[in-house]
Amino acid sequence: MTDIDHVAIPATDIGAGVEFYRSRFGAKVLYQDSTWAFLQMGPIKLALVTPTQHPPHVAIRVTAEELEEFAREANKPIDKHRDGTTGLYIHDPFGNAVELICYPES
Amino acid sequence: MTDIDHVAIPATDIGAGVEFYRSRFGAKVLYQDSTWAFLQMGPIKLALVTPTQHPPHVAIRVTAEELEEFAREANKPIDKHRDGTTGLYIHDPFGNAVELICYPES
Repeated sequence: MTDIDHVAIPATDIGAGVEFYRSRFGAKVLYQDSTWAFLQMGPIKLALVTPTQHPPHVAIRVTAEELEEFAREANKPIDKHRDGTTGLYIHDPFGNAVELICYPES
Repeated sequence: MTDIDHVAIPATDIGAGVEFYRSRFGAKVLYQDSTWAFLQMGPIKLALVTPTQHPPHVAIRVTAEELEEFAREANKPIDKHRDGTTGLYIHDPFGNAVELICYPES
């Protein structure tokens, strides 16, 4: 459970953000709607998120067992996402949001 | 020039930040001083930075030729780092700092 899966940074105009990272850096668009986008950039994904809709964060891959342990520790429910992944947000000591994400195959 | 190399997030206490990511996620410490730390977390590195010393950012790998082109476009000098890498900071349309980093072998 050490792998960074993706990082999400704020973008107030998702279309303009996608165009910036696509045209300058060749980012590949995996998903895009008006509130966020998911771009493949080499070994990880870059998410562009409307800050009022989704918190900027770093996402770390965990197993289902690790996710359950983090959920118990944080006393928070596990979120189920439409793409089959499950996850949970915690915060580091400095208030940075960290998403723990579990892929179905893990 | 699509690969994310590392991401840097703010940490006001580098030692406490290293301990958090090391103990919970098994991050491997590549470098650490009182102002910043560099942690291997799977495919990329996570930097913890004192915000008054180093700007939080996403770093993207570029070739020497690409770096020179970005420097011309931004009309900024290329920074030489102690580890042999060279780089340049630009900003995306939302003010997020993006470091363009070139490794000697590129």
